[in-house]
Amino acid sequence: MELAQIIKIARGDEPADTLLKNGRVINVFSGEIIETDIAIVHSRIVGLGPYEARQTVDLAGRYVAPGLIDSHVHIESAMVPPPEFARAVVPRGTTTVVTDPHEIANVLGLEGIRYMLEMAKYNPLSVYVNAPSCVPSTAMETTGASLEWYDLQPLQQEEYVVGLAEVMNFPGVVAGEESVLNKIRSFQHMVKDGHCPGLSGRDLIAYVNADIGSDHESTTIEEALEKLRLGMYIFIREATNARNLRTLLPLVTPENARRICFCTDDRQPADILKEGHIDYMIRSAIAGDIPPITAFRMATLNPSEYFDLHDRGAIAPGRRADLMIFSDLQAPVAEMVYRGGKLVAQDGVMLPWEREIKRSVLRSSMNIDWSKVDLSIDVEGEQVRIIGAIPDQLITTHLVEETPRADGKVVPDTRRDILKMAVIERHLATGRMGKGLVRGLGLQQGAIASTVAHDHHNIVVVGADDQSMLAAARAVADTRGGMVAVDGDTILAQLPLPIAGLMSDQPIERVRDQMDELLKAAHRLGSPLHDPFMAMSFLALPVIPSLKLTDHGLVDVDEFHLVSLFV
Amino acid sequence: MELAQIIKIARGDEPADTLLKNGRVINVFSGEIIETDIAIVHSRIVGLGPYEARQTVDLAGRYVAPGLIDSHVHIESAMVPPPEFARAVVPRGTTTVVTDPHEIANVLGLEGIRYMLEMAKYNPLSVYVNAPSCVPSTAMETTGASLEWYDLQPLQQEEYVVGLAEVMNFPGVVAGEESVLNKIRSFQHMVKDGHCPGLSGRDLIAYVNADIGSDHESTTIEEALEKLRLGMYIFIREATNARNLRTLLPLVTPENARRICFCTDDRQPADILKEGHIDYMIRSAIAGDIPPITAFRMATLNPSEYFDLHDRGAIAPGRRADLMIFSDLQAPVAEMVYRGGKLVAQDGVMLPWEREIKRSVLRSSMNIDWSKVDLSIDVEGEQVRIIGAIPDQLITTHLVEETPRADGKVVPDTRRDILKMAVIERHLATGRMGKGLVRGLGLQQGAIASTVAHDHHNIVVVGADDQSMLAAARAVADTRGGMVAVDGDTILAQLPLPIAGLMSDQPIERVRDQMDELLKAAHRLGSPLHDPFMAMSFLALPVIPSLKLTDHGLVDVDEFHLVSLFV
Repeated sequence: MELAQIIKIARGDEPADTLLKNGRVINVFSGEIIETDIAIVHSRIVGLGPYEARQTVDLAGRYVAPGLIDSHVHIESAMVPPPEFARAVVPRGTTTVVTDPHEIANVLGLEGIRYMLEMAKYNPLSVYVNAPSCVPSTAMETTGASLEWYDLQPLQQEEYVVGLAEVMNFPGVVAGEESVLNKIRSFQHMVKDGHCPGLSGRDLIAYVNADIGSDHESTTIEEALEKLRLGMYIFIREATNARNLRTLLPLVTPENARRICFCTDDRQPADILKEGHIDYMIRSAIAGDIPPITAFRMATLNPSEYFDLHDRGAIAPGRRADLMIFSDLQAPVAEMVYRGGKLVAQDGVMLPWEREIKRSVLRSSMNIDWSKVDLSIDVEGEQVRIIGAIPDQLITTHLVEETPRADGKVVPDTRRDILKMAVIERHLATGRMGKGLVRGLGLQQGAIASTVAHDHHNIVVVGADDQSMLAAARAVADTRGGMVAVDGDTILAQLPLPIAGLMSDQPIERVRDQMDELLKAAHRLGSPLHDPFMAMSFLALPVIPSLKLTDHGLVDVDEFHLVSLFV
Repeated sequence: MELAQIIKIARGDEPADTLLKNGRVINVFSGEIIETDIAIVHSRIVGLGPYEARQTVDLAGRYVAPGLIDSHVHIESAMVPPPEFARAVVPRGTTTVVTDPHEIANVLGLEGIRYMLEMAKYNPLSVYVNAPSCVPSTAMETTGASLEWYDLQPLQQEEYVVGLAEVMNFPGVVAGEESVLNKIRSFQHMVKDGHCPGLSGRDLIAYVNADIGSDHESTTIEEALEKLRLGMYIFIREATNARNLRTLLPLVTPENARRICFCTDDRQPADILKEGHIDYMIRSAIAGDIPPITAFRMATLNPSEYFDLHDRGAIAPGRRADLMIFSDLQAPVAEMVYRGGKLVAQDGVMLPWEREIKRSVLRSSMNIDWSKVDLSIDVEGEQVRIIGAIPDQLITTHLVEETPRADGKVVPDTRRDILKMAVIERHLATGRMGKGLVRGLGLQQGAIASTVAHDHHNIVVVGADDQSMLAAARAVADTRGGMVAVDGDTILAQLPLPIAGLMSDQPIERVRDQMDELLKAAHRLGSPLHDPFMAMSFLALPVIPSLKLTDHGLVDVDEFHLVSLFV
């Protein structure tokens, strides 16, 4: 709306669109809760106090906080595209997220990033995008795309692109590698998020010198404090598989709270639907004795300042009317959510949205040369390397044992908990595949397969026999990606992820249920792990020690080179 | 310096330029004081902790704070141009100022603004400029220039221009006047500072809706708190003639301190040289029980965030090595000042600067058609309006009394404390002049004149006889501007201000001494006021009630129109 008109309404000469009366408004500037009314015009707050308006809503003393901001999230981890993700998180009070489409970028490159940008339009959720900085993550895997600094430059012109996403290649920065420094240079005047678990001392200082402004990987107070003192914003993370909130809460003091934000990074459907999103972090923080206003600031004013999103993050004239309305200050649960001046969710449910969600067409990401897929392994030595999975950890052990064999072939041996594993390239139909052995997933029969395998997202399959493994790999390809549990030729349970092999086209509740069924099936096949799919996914991630498998083969991560199966 | 090289040094693989050892470093992020070393490369901080360096300086446990930032200052009020201003404030720890060249812009327009930008180069002080928003301030005065939004637009391309300076025309904003809204619109993505003394309620809300981000005019806690709650940054001001610091200190709480900055607005040479600059505000704040780190934050991190100057305001890798080094945390006085990695001042004295100061040539701003200057006033009525000056206040009273007369002319009457006053247009040689009468300056003989008269800066002269008045006006014109005290044809004391009639080309200490002599001469002429020149200057400012005089004539400010001398 035109400024002159806004001023007229602010003066009280013309009525506002909506007046939210009798609110207890959290003022993130002054740190107070103020009983007042909120006047809204179009998408913005125009005034506080008594105003005439065409429509009045009585909040009856409910609290009003600014809409919540998730400072760092991979939407793909919710296994649904932005509109469905919005449907899950907006009713919980989240009205803005900064997403790193790192997963889909590894599959589909710029096409995938643009898909996320397009799908984010016309939703009741503001989706800002950071350009993925590490596609691919390593040279020892095949991805669907490779993005250099000049590939990312066009994104800088996009309205909703705010910067460069987590620079995971922190060793590259510290070593001064030109390919990563070029990306940093080209995003000179934009935000650059960090990712530097455990980095400390001069190496951390070198990383900060590259103008990396934040980190969300701290797992101890000491680690977070060292980074905060050097000027990094600390994003406290509460993901599905990395929960740092309770550990890091004691970091927060009145002196440093302005430098701390909240993020979810990777949250699976079950956790979003059961626990919540950023609202869950706020409740947990308050339960952990953080003052409520401080907790809200970490999800509102602080990220708005860090990301230079000065049109939101506070309830004040001129800011967007993104609002979370709730009754219990000690355990805030959104009862109403306004986004851009519109009531978009009530009592945990999204209201019908005014515009049709954009339907962006995306090609299948499954390109496999099945003629080259051969799961058999000839015996070429007496001893083999075995990946040792550790429950609830991303790291693995590097085992060497006697080769399990039959008829000249390497075979699974369930008595010794040795399963076969394969990573089948699925982006470019190169026919490339890696084969290996794994202990710790515990299947007694059948196989499980997935096209979600950080960061390259090739097909990863683990099984007790080749027939089941091939059927599983074929099954996920048949659904244009997904997850499956198979026994012989029988599909026991299945979660199709036709969007880039990462996301479903179904409601998030259905995704959660399908995931539940999958886990039950895997347990019936003998796995004792809570989530053998997630465990399997990380067996293919060659940036975390010690022994991993990609489509290039076995990777000795400690030495950072490929090794053969046989010792 | 190139990023790869910086990273190498940060890692410790190559020596830094300078290491400041054994400092007690104020960490504005964590709110701590940390004993450490500071490694500097070229103009920036590259690391904290032990480093090898080509040069080492032992701070012997002294405190180190980031260089201070003055969030809003009119350098012209120091009556010297930027290099001399820098010589006065840098040794006190100020390394960055945001200046509004409002005064020189009223005299010389864009030429004046560019002069300030040019003169600010190659100094040991970062001078950022906000584009003056109110040139002229009213239509009832003649200025040397008039700057509309399209005149200001070229400034947006200037590297050191950060936004739009104090939008003093707050009534225009609240009324939705297009000329001022156009300026605001054209600075949409830049900072817009405010100036709205006493504005409250819906009018204030209307003003904030125009995205005005700060205000430095609050004189009470309540006023400041209302603005802060609405999202404005509060700049606490300690000027020569408007001292708000002690009053506003109780505003500052741990909850809201991040939204508060310090500024000096207008400080005369004597105050800068005697009390100090932003350092004086920090000492005063600490004496007023503000925690030292909070006090420093209001002059470092807070303005760096407000103005988006993320390369300074903290002592951290990648930030500029702008540093204030001192011994007493309870009363910080700079002993060493680093700016851009170089030691630029020590023990209150500027060190020889490495580059020659830019000498920018500026035309004389004195353009007067003396043929039209006639100070005599024919008697045209029995009663006259008299401006009633009030000691130490900018407002005046609007008096009506019997016309003091002799030989058909209106004449001064020192027994009734009635002096003559004239405002002579000096920019465009229009010959325009306003004539009137004033009570309260107290001269018994002679005259005083000045070319400093906010905001139009025409010649203002007050005297007990026409001969002295004309001699005084001529005298300030002869020095291309300035201030003078005259008795008959004798010049008693004089402060030439040849730069735009606002600034001296002499050292600031000499300006102070000349000002001292001027005040003594005025006192000898009979004025009981501490500073009759400042009082006279504000008699010509038609935006503050009640009766004022400009070159257009007498202004009834309450009615906001011109009135005649005779009732």
